[in-house]
Amino acid sequence: MSEKPLILVTNDDGITAPGIRALIKVMTTIGDVVVVAPDSPQSGMGHAITINSTLHVESVVIDDGPQKEYSCSGTPADCVKLGVRQILDRRPDLCVSGINHGSNASINVIYSGTMSAAIEAGIEGIPAIGFSLCNYNWNANFEACQAYVKTITENVLKHGLDHGVVLNVNIPDAKKESIKGIKICRQAKANWVEEFDKRTNPHGKDYYWLTGTFVNLDQGEDTDEWALTNNYVSLVPIQFDLTAHHCIQQLNTWDFE
Amino acid sequence: MSEKPLILVTNDDGITAPGIRALIKVMTTIGDVVVVAPDSPQSGMGHAITINSTLHVESVVIDDGPQKEYSCSGTPADCVKLGVRQILDRRPDLCVSGINHGSNASINVIYSGTMSAAIEAGIEGIPAIGFSLCNYNWNANFEACQAYVKTITENVLKHGLDHGVVLNVNIPDAKKESIKGIKICRQAKANWVEEFDKRTNPHGKDYYWLTGTFVNLDQGEDTDEWALTNNYVSLVPIQFDLTAHHCIQQLNTWDFE
Repeated sequence: MSEKPLILVTNDDGITAPGIRALIKVMTTIGDVVVVAPDSPQSGMGHAITINSTLHVESVVIDDGPQKEYSCSGTPADCVKLGVRQILDRRPDLCVSGINHGSNASINVIYSGTMSAAIEAGIEGIPAIGFSLCNYNWNANFEACQAYVKTITENVLKHGLDHGVVLNVNIPDAKKESIKGIKICRQAKANWVEEFDKRTNPHGKDYYWLTGTFVNLDQGEDTDEWALTNNYVSLVPIQFDLTAHHCIQQLNTWDFE
Repeated sequence: MSEKPLILVTNDDGITAPGIRALIKVMTTIGDVVVVAPDSPQSGMGHAITINSTLHVESVVIDDGPQKEYSCSGTPADCVKLGVRQILDRRPDLCVSGINHGSNASINVIYSGTMSAAIEAGIEGIPAIGFSLCNYNWNANFEACQAYVKTITENVLKHGLDHGVVLNVNIPDAKKESIKGIKICRQAKANWVEEFDKRTNPHGKDYYWLTGTFVNLDQGEDTDEWALTNNYVSLVPIQFDLTAHHCIQQLNTWDFE
């Protein structure tokens, strides 16, 4: 029986994305790897799950690595549920998601399929990490990520994570020698200011494209956005108990008669 | 010019669902109402947004109420973005989402399109409430909800909400006279244990349906699940700063060399 940790790998850009291929490559140096990832891009899917339609899974071979791979018709969260409950024959020791093509720092964590996969694993009680590179290009260079992905993963396997906590790791789009190290951060209080690009189709009907600008008014030097701007890898511990505990006392003073 | 508050109404079950119709009815007694809701059910969509396809919006008339209504091809989060940025001519004073057909208590908040709409409004800095009735039936009776929806809404308009906080309100499926009142709660630490129903299609190909059982091992009497089981309306303040602040110190002791 293998002594190596069992690692479930997934993402939201789809199983053939260069980001997940780079992640798989690092993970096979650490443990036994099973990939269960979407068969097509699922960006912006947030924590969507497939309730009202069926899920398909195919065993696939994409490269000559030692990992087993399955492509799935569902969302990133579906992939984790299917991996843990249906495909793996034992409980994974770790779930890693990514490497996402594009930042999931700050409020982007809310919209992120990459992070929802990690959160789904966390809900299952499995230590989990989402990795993202701050470059949206399909042909982004993931080389500088490798050492950081490896050391963070090894630390999680060694120390574990508190129940209810997963890690959101973002890596600046910079050369290896320019990256200054890893900073433990909080989520910056930033948001998107949406603009809708309104167009008319050839049949005279209006439609919209969602576009927007990311605006960070949070001046803190302890945020993920600060770390990334200053060429650090940001590591934010994320929780899925969303309770705003600090508000409970105040709400108890309201009069509901 | 109207002195009444401007209220944006949305949901995830679709614009014709009895739950949103009940919510609109209550809101028109409080303010000027604009509805921007999905043209079809979006349950389980979590915080999905539409990036890679276009959005369509139609002005619709569904009943003889005073509200304006728009049906939208997107997700609940898209509806809020479109409502705020494109459809409304001034900033809404409040966004309400629901009344969802089914519970969004405990971990369900993570998968909930209803709550993601409220969270999206919260990110925009608009006070927001998600309402859910603990009954999944399309023909559920929303009568007992009305007084609670009204008093909670009026309290939010009166007191406001801290920036970064929205409310998750769940209403037990019980007769009006059996409901004991409103409890301010924390999110119960419960989760779904998934089971996949594996089937074979007429062409010999396997597929899966996602099913599961909700398991609550959290014995606390301050949780939303406890409140609902004991016939109280649960009100949980929810935040979208997901940082697990309590872990930051511990993570700073890790060795990333």
